[in-house]
Amino acid sequence: MDDRYEMFNGGLSRKIEVGELKVPFREIPISTGETLKLYDTSGPQNIAPGVGLPKRRASWISKRKQRGDTNFSQLHYARKGMITEEMQFVAIREDVTPEFVRDEIAAGRAVIPSSICHPEIEPMIIGRNFLVKVNANIGNSRVSSSIEEEVEKLRWSVQWGADTVMDLSTGDDLTETREQILRNSPVPIGTVPIYEALELVKGKVEDLNIDIFLEILERQAKQGVSYFTIHAGVLLHHVPMTAKRVTGIVSRGGSIMAKWCLHHHKENFLYTDFDKICELMKRYDVCFSLGDGLRPGCIADANDEAQFGELIALGELTKIAWKHDVQVMIEGPGHVPMHLIKENMDMQLEHCHEAPFYTLGPLITDISPGYDHISSAIGAAMIGSFGCAMLCYVTPKEHLGLPNREDVKQGLICYKIAAHAADLAKGHKGAQDRDNLLSEARFEFRWEDQFNLALDPGIARDYHDETLPNDASKTAHFCSMCGPRFCSMQISQEVREYAAAHALKESEVLQAGMAEKSSEFSKSGGEVYVPNK
Amino acid sequence: MDDRYEMFNGGLSRKIEVGELKVPFREIPISTGETLKLYDTSGPQNIAPGVGLPKRRASWISKRKQRGDTNFSQLHYARKGMITEEMQFVAIREDVTPEFVRDEIAAGRAVIPSSICHPEIEPMIIGRNFLVKVNANIGNSRVSSSIEEEVEKLRWSVQWGADTVMDLSTGDDLTETREQILRNSPVPIGTVPIYEALELVKGKVEDLNIDIFLEILERQAKQGVSYFTIHAGVLLHHVPMTAKRVTGIVSRGGSIMAKWCLHHHKENFLYTDFDKICELMKRYDVCFSLGDGLRPGCIADANDEAQFGELIALGELTKIAWKHDVQVMIEGPGHVPMHLIKENMDMQLEHCHEAPFYTLGPLITDISPGYDHISSAIGAAMIGSFGCAMLCYVTPKEHLGLPNREDVKQGLICYKIAAHAADLAKGHKGAQDRDNLLSEARFEFRWEDQFNLALDPGIARDYHDETLPNDASKTAHFCSMCGPRFCSMQISQEVREYAAAHALKESEVLQAGMAEKSSEFSKSGGEVYVPNK
Repeated sequence: MDDRYEMFNGGLSRKIEVGELKVPFREIPISTGETLKLYDTSGPQNIAPGVGLPKRRASWISKRKQRGDTNFSQLHYARKGMITEEMQFVAIREDVTPEFVRDEIAAGRAVIPSSICHPEIEPMIIGRNFLVKVNANIGNSRVSSSIEEEVEKLRWSVQWGADTVMDLSTGDDLTETREQILRNSPVPIGTVPIYEALELVKGKVEDLNIDIFLEILERQAKQGVSYFTIHAGVLLHHVPMTAKRVTGIVSRGGSIMAKWCLHHHKENFLYTDFDKICELMKRYDVCFSLGDGLRPGCIADANDEAQFGELIALGELTKIAWKHDVQVMIEGPGHVPMHLIKENMDMQLEHCHEAPFYTLGPLITDISPGYDHISSAIGAAMIGSFGCAMLCYVTPKEHLGLPNREDVKQGLICYKIAAHAADLAKGHKGAQDRDNLLSEARFEFRWEDQFNLALDPGIARDYHDETLPNDASKTAHFCSMCGPRFCSMQISQEVREYAAAHALKESEVLQAGMAEKSSEFSKSGGEVYVPNK
Repeated sequence: MDDRYEMFNGGLSRKIEVGELKVPFREIPISTGETLKLYDTSGPQNIAPGVGLPKRRASWISKRKQRGDTNFSQLHYARKGMITEEMQFVAIREDVTPEFVRDEIAAGRAVIPSSICHPEIEPMIIGRNFLVKVNANIGNSRVSSSIEEEVEKLRWSVQWGADTVMDLSTGDDLTETREQILRNSPVPIGTVPIYEALELVKGKVEDLNIDIFLEILERQAKQGVSYFTIHAGVLLHHVPMTAKRVTGIVSRGGSIMAKWCLHHHKENFLYTDFDKICELMKRYDVCFSLGDGLRPGCIADANDEAQFGELIALGELTKIAWKHDVQVMIEGPGHVPMHLIKENMDMQLEHCHEAPFYTLGPLITDISPGYDHISSAIGAAMIGSFGCAMLCYVTPKEHLGLPNREDVKQGLICYKIAAHAADLAKGHKGAQDRDNLLSEARFEFRWEDQFNLALDPGIARDYHDETLPNDASKTAHFCSMCGPRFCSMQISQEVREYAAAHALKESEVLQAGMAEKSSEFSKSGGEVYVPNK
């Protein structure tokens, strides 16, 4: 074992850093001598939570402050033609030019959520011309969970590939929980500020107002939250559209704003005072994640007038945010049957002017509680392939309870599959390299390479060892599925060797009477059964 | 608890039988007084393996023998305009007319695999205008597993919804294993007879010939196998097309036939002697499952000339089989990235004249060993929505080892999700009823109804109880995800009640100055927090 490599998630790899900006990658060794360089979200390792991660962006940001900038948004810089360190960083990470990154941001097609108060971030980009990203939700509720658990879930999430993490806490110690998460997070953190605002007014929805909301935004922005889910598109006239639905309003933020609108019989203050929110967010470069408060909560409610009415409102708000040079992404559903998924993506691109789409699933059926990570990964893979830029994971506990550590991992693996499959479907440059290397290893019975290249090397190894545990079997030219006599890969290799040795071409094979070839094959090919080497 | 119901897979339900033919369904009780009638594959319960299942088709078949029939295929009867008991049975099962069933079979668009030597079958139909079906593979190999284990896997498979089961045994005791499986199976059993043929020639591929193959077919047909995977489309000139592939030939049957072709430098005897095979199969009504011996084994090899070359050959063979009135379905890949899936379905419909398609996955990436049930369920759901009639499950052990009991269950749940999602996407009549009932139960916090309506009631209940174990919480009007204060469903219900009470219309809400409505809401709505009832 090459001692430059270590065990990580059950497989051999090492963290490497590229260039002056020290852009992190994970390198997988392959027994052929090749290596594979993978995008890596895991961040600096082995740092005590009390210490917090190094502040790699501190000098970049202080330089901007020194020259007197007042709008710190990446969109603002991009539109001025500037290439920030964050753009350079993601350009290396994504293997594109910094100019391309800048232009995608300037066009509003991509965002780099990177609060100037979260200098620990390793910058990442969300946009449909980049790798598809995955978000993991963590957060306590009044019923369950502690700060330590949430920080540990954060670490665990980035270890398994979360590109961003949302802290959805609604319990006690909101500020302290968030602070601990931020100081230990190498990825951007998103929140839904209305939750904390509601705690401030002791749960009385009707007491919410724009001043209280702005107070909470400022508090969270100063801590370093990089994107806010804001349900500014839930409008008064949308609310009755939900009364006929099977599951009404399923977004917590959406239902709070709907109740506020009905109570006061006024338009949503997040909508009417949207400019004030933009003014605040650009001072910290907090990115909008315009919430889909009216997303469908079941198959029956998918793509209805409430949902699309809100989407159109989000498109209007996108233009307002862009006037302030504030970055925007748009949240999407939810529960949608497969045949209605593409319409969601098409409508979003059209009405929201190509701002990045960020969806929760969608789940493609309602009948799979306990397996909604899987139902939703199907929808997520599809919408990713259609252009969705970030996929919010769903865990096995969706609709049932709060996810534990294993649930978080299961949700992430499902969503890494979905995101990667979407990259493949979009023909994203280099995305197929890992598939090809793993498949070559599979064909050549290089088991250790297969494990190391897998999304979850530890599980791949464990499952293999369950049937064939001894070391010899890891070099065997067959596996337990078929046994030695029926190994198609083995026979296939014989066919290939024969074809190569004889420069066999289709046209030749078609010639009749090539008895010589047949006897040659008999001599060279040997038995189907090849003893364990 | 209504004592007509019992616990089954962790949820309350009961088996019911409909009509003279005693067509089985599963009935789920709902606390509102409604019931839901579901398609049920579980077969007669609590029968000792040594006894075997009741032979419900025995009288139907003996009647046909008495009148001197020689071609027993459902296609033969359908083309003569006859409606068999099997067709009547599936008509009730699928909630369509017997005439529709007959016409779909006569057109070759659907098959009822129902060997006359397997009278224990509860007939089922495979075709894209019916519910999407799921196959589970079981079977021992030389490395692992026993007969008892395989029979138990069969029972476990139908308990979790397998519509057909393939016995892929390649180890010892092939005949006895198959006999035990058949006598205990309420679902059609498929096999890949070339495996047993190869055992007969002691693994020497070159010694295979049509006579040996027909001998094995006869043996298996007499036992009651209902469909044979036969790799008759692997032609000599296809073989060199696979030499450039990343993973060559990954089908065991395909690689055996390729080796045979190369060795003898002759055309595949399954192709050249296809008529003889048809003659045999119609005497038992064994259905062809024309094997995709050249299916791609990795993303890089998808949709290549070898794969589609074979598909075109399978189309030719379909026409030959139909000349004999033998039923046909066509097997498909494998590993295919999402954007290339639809082409598979389109090509299959075009070249194979709408014979039912039966695919393995496809997996939409190669990087997920240990989670290939999930990767492949994504591809399966998609191809199902495009018209694939039956989905062959993949378990978490794919590529790594032999599935155990839990793996079989995980594979089946994933594929029941995929098949159901495909039914929804196709707008299949009644498919959404279960989703709607479950979602209504979710909206109204009827937890027990949610569990009973779930694909896996036991897991749904366990996950719920992990966070909120006490009985009171099962009637709580919130769940552990949001806690009481943030429950969107609760708020939503308030909105709905308010809307209903006041016959609220969109136009009214839009009128300004309706202060009266706002104060009414304050009076009627109460707090967001509703104490546990």
